[in-house]
Amino acid sequence: MTKDPFTKLQRLLSEDMTDVTNLITKRMYSEYTPLIPIMTEHILNAGGKRLRPLLTLASARLLGYKGYHHIHLAGIVELIHTATLLHDDVVDKSEKRRGKITANSKWDNKSAVLVGDYLFARAFQLMVEIGSIEILASLSKASAEISQSEVLQMSLAKNITSSESDYMRVIKGKTATLFSSACEVGGLISKGTPSQTEALAIYGESLGISFQIVDDILDYGGTNTTLGKNVGDDFKERKITLPILISLSKSDSSAKSFWSRTIGRGDQLEEDFEKAQQILFKDGSLEETRLKALYWAERAKSQLSALPSGEINDLMGELTSFVVSRVL
Amino acid sequence: MTKDPFTKLQRLLSEDMTDVTNLITKRMYSEYTPLIPIMTEHILNAGGKRLRPLLTLASARLLGYKGYHHIHLAGIVELIHTATLLHDDVVDKSEKRRGKITANSKWDNKSAVLVGDYLFARAFQLMVEIGSIEILASLSKASAEISQSEVLQMSLAKNITSSESDYMRVIKGKTATLFSSACEVGGLISKGTPSQTEALAIYGESLGISFQIVDDILDYGGTNTTLGKNVGDDFKERKITLPILISLSKSDSSAKSFWSRTIGRGDQLEEDFEKAQQILFKDGSLEETRLKALYWAERAKSQLSALPSGEINDLMGELTSFVVSRVL
Repeated sequence: MTKDPFTKLQRLLSEDMTDVTNLITKRMYSEYTPLIPIMTEHILNAGGKRLRPLLTLASARLLGYKGYHHIHLAGIVELIHTATLLHDDVVDKSEKRRGKITANSKWDNKSAVLVGDYLFARAFQLMVEIGSIEILASLSKASAEISQSEVLQMSLAKNITSSESDYMRVIKGKTATLFSSACEVGGLISKGTPSQTEALAIYGESLGISFQIVDDILDYGGTNTTLGKNVGDDFKERKITLPILISLSKSDSSAKSFWSRTIGRGDQLEEDFEKAQQILFKDGSLEETRLKALYWAERAKSQLSALPSGEINDLMGELTSFVVSRVL
Repeated sequence: MTKDPFTKLQRLLSEDMTDVTNLITKRMYSEYTPLIPIMTEHILNAGGKRLRPLLTLASARLLGYKGYHHIHLAGIVELIHTATLLHDDVVDKSEKRRGKITANSKWDNKSAVLVGDYLFARAFQLMVEIGSIEILASLSKASAEISQSEVLQMSLAKNITSSESDYMRVIKGKTATLFSSACEVGGLISKGTPSQTEALAIYGESLGISFQIVDDILDYGGTNTTLGKNVGDDFKERKITLPILISLSKSDSSAKSFWSRTIGRGDQLEEDFEKAQQILFKDGSLEETRLKALYWAERAKSQLSALPSGEINDLMGELTSFVVSRVL
């Protein structure tokens, strides 16, 4: 028997998740534009773990929701996430995502941009079907924040004078807002009390921040497990992530000049990535970053006392530690 | 005094249109991501005539709307249109739009994709503020149809066996649906009767079809006036538009082999565009296409009898002929 709370949640909610997949497949069917369902299926099957829709399903189950709109909501959350992945891969000119060829590589940028737009618009149409203005407000805000913070991230890239608060603003927008909304709408659809819905939103936001910080650590190594990503991409793309910010704040002048050369000026030699890993490990930056991730995981967990106890609550609690344990 | 009904409508609704511009400027302001308002302003000032938001304002005025949400709606319609232009220019690798440098050229594809996403999400947030599910349904459907039909257009390009019904499906989706929604939401916000709102939706759809057919004629010449576009682009991009479909349906074997070579196989010589113009003129295809545009313009005009009479009604009627008169 597995001890991993993520897999346990997946199993517990597997019927709902199958419904989510079927709903997406049904709604993406298109008589005249078969490329849309083909491309959607490609990216949905590209190995993503569907953590975000799982959070929506878990939140609704936690509050005892009995209807079927949580399926729609989880589908919407996954469609928004998928649309952003399609566009991200165009924007970053990525050829692979989790070892699988990206849509922009398999087809072209043109199709990836347009199908991304379509998924996004269809997500809004599904929201409209549910008919709740509160839910629309939560998810449209999340959508706007994702693209806004990606613009911000782009403008901050390569700038080694950017601050930790810049970094936090970026990861809240690009990752934590959709985690937060994914949980919040599970609460809204279940007619949770305002304090329950708020606890879910803060749980999601904190978990999302923790998740992204861990992702940024994993880019410099760590144990690359199921929820992992490609090592070294951030360094190559000269993204200013938390490990580097922490290293910059403490580093001696030789380390500073290393970051300034490799990230600031983009003058990278083949051995530099390994050197970067060594610096971050030796000066304690990776460990300090991990402690920050743990802080946000704890903040997520602390919200759960305001929510009904039981198996789902326990698993959502364990999930917060599990997210950080990826770098143990 | 001008006789042009478009300019007259612009003047009549100029205060409202100023409010629309101010609303967009205000909502696009971003403390941390100044690129967003800068890029939005660039594309909004790129010489577009704002026909779509004007239709929203006119529809609301026609039904005597007294609130301020028509300003929001017109802004939303313009934001959705602007977002699609940003993405279209990335997709088509366009360097100029109406003689002005495109955002993807002035900045880069990355920014144009992300800012397009942002405008789209902000448009939905504005819709949520209005709080009407009917309006959200109309505009989210239009948004989905725009991207879906652009995918369709892409898959039909270069295929000279595609049909007139394929063509109609594409232009309804990519152009007429937003025209239709622009008018319909003006009716919805004014609490028009269902038959008034439907008349507005059909007016907008028919006008949009007529507008797009005329645009496709203008690509092969015609009098390129204020609402015009770049001549020759469709031919270069091997788009199968109505003039070519009509020519293919009637043409002798030498013309057929010309279209097959230039559009089908993309084997184009420098003198071919002029030759294409001559074929379409001589075999009557441009004139037949114009008559189809006129048919849709008449269909638009005929809806106006179901709507309150007066100056706005008259100008909306004259506008239908004006749209086609661009190719007189």
